[in-house]
Amino acid sequence: TVELDEDHGEHPGTIQLLNGDPLVAAVQYTGERLLLDEVRLVAPVIPRSKVVAVGRNYAAHAAEMGNDVPAEPMVFLKPNTAVIGSGEPIIYPQQTNAVDHEAELAVVIGRICKDVPVERVPEVVFGYTCGNDVSARDLQKSDGQWGRAKGFDTFCPLGPWVVTHLSIAEASDLQIRSTVTRDGRTIERQSSTTAHMVHGIAELVSFVSSFTTLLPGDVILTGTPEGVGRIEPGDTVHVEIEGIGTLSNPVVATDG
Amino acid sequence: TVELDEDHGEHPGTIQLLNGDPLVAAVQYTGERLLLDEVRLVAPVIPRSKVVAVGRNYAAHAAEMGNDVPAEPMVFLKPNTAVIGSGEPIIYPQQTNAVDHEAELAVVIGRICKDVPVERVPEVVFGYTCGNDVSARDLQKSDGQWGRAKGFDTFCPLGPWVVTHLSIAEASDLQIRSTVTRDGRTIERQSSTTAHMVHGIAELVSFVSSFTTLLPGDVILTGTPEGVGRIEPGDTVHVEIEGIGTLSNPVVATDG
Repeated sequence: TVELDEDHGEHPGTIQLLNGDPLVAAVQYTGERLLLDEVRLVAPVIPRSKVVAVGRNYAAHAAEMGNDVPAEPMVFLKPNTAVIGSGEPIIYPQQTNAVDHEAELAVVIGRICKDVPVERVPEVVFGYTCGNDVSARDLQKSDGQWGRAKGFDTFCPLGPWVVTHLSIAEASDLQIRSTVTRDGRTIERQSSTTAHMVHGIAELVSFVSSFTTLLPGDVILTGTPEGVGRIEPGDTVHVEIEGIGTLSNPVVATDG
Repeated sequence: TVELDEDHGEHPGTIQLLNGDPLVAAVQYTGERLLLDEVRLVAPVIPRSKVVAVGRNYAAHAAEMGNDVPAEPMVFLKPNTAVIGSGEPIIYPQQTNAVDHEAELAVVIGRICKDVPVERVPEVVFGYTCGNDVSARDLQKSDGQWGRAKGFDTFCPLGPWVVTHLSIAEASDLQIRSTVTRDGRTIERQSSTTAHMVHGIAELVSFVSSFTTLLPGDVILTGTPEGVGRIEPGDTVHVEIEGIGTLSNPVVATDG
């Protein structure tokens, strides 16, 4: 459990250790507390089944890609083997010359569920984290199906941690930004709010659960706002969501 | 371990029980042996990560769907939550009116691997089973991405067991058929050979491993031959592959 400076708690900037997996059963605190600056966080969740991603869920992003907004959520899958945590490198594959970041709010599922009505979605959401739906645009276009273009190892950064106290209403009104640091300068790329989703959080979880059983730890990526852009080896890409934190990943070439 | 009549062994039509998971470590036989007719087999493998499927990998099937054969394998993912075994029902979703069977040779991965050269693919293949890439054609078309249309619960029958003794050359020259039993009559739908794959088994495994880490138990579906067709509640669909066995699944409506 992380206690942040901005939470104004008694132990700012620390992390409290716990035993067990909160997605499986109750956990116990070990009593140990470490400085957040002195630990290396790994991905806060590795889905045991799937990352379900939703395309074209912000109208301005659909427009910048030349697409219409679909009437129903447009769903694709990213493999759990693509997940990395904050600080871990995005490895730029040799097969592509056009890799984009896509900042997204990630919903972490807490309970096995199927056919969840919209009004009961709060019962199955464990929490929220930042996600980056890294995408090889050239392969996305040439392959048609996005299994490879969005499924490369390291193409699903999640983190830095899972925030568990937000209501769906609160998570549906958060600033979401991405920035890229290149040659020492940090440039803003995406800046929007989760309020601009076409299909909202509860609707998305309900929709996804209407065709596939969701398992604890499964993740739903809720789409990206406008402003997506290229990343290159040497860059560091940051996804920042208000009230959650910042997910930062350096980009490295395959050979290094 | 299953001993079949056609193997001419000492215990035809029986199944030998073992402890442990052969994908994880060595196994021990319990010494117990049961009649195959008296057991209910479950899915022989639930991928811990993913089912990677390949589209348009038989030229005659690509043609019957009005598509060209892609230069590189066209990859999409099916979730592990869609896997069922032989005998288990395919549940016909309410969201579709056009569900097709697709008989496919399924490759079961035995070792964690990445960037496997074609010549080393035999080292990472655990075995082969029959697969059915059940597909909702209407949603496939309207969604564009196939995550939902091919990702419904029960849309990935695998089984009846994993055959582990076939070489890649042997697995690349097997008769593959599908039949549908409706109103007491069984009609042939697909009849081809795995020799007709555009991209062969070794090439597919190598290609998939070039972008994603494969885990033991992950499955690669190698595409379907021509002759796909509709299934309806009340049908039973059979996928039969020479030297492997027959995967049979009844189709039932959502409400029962």
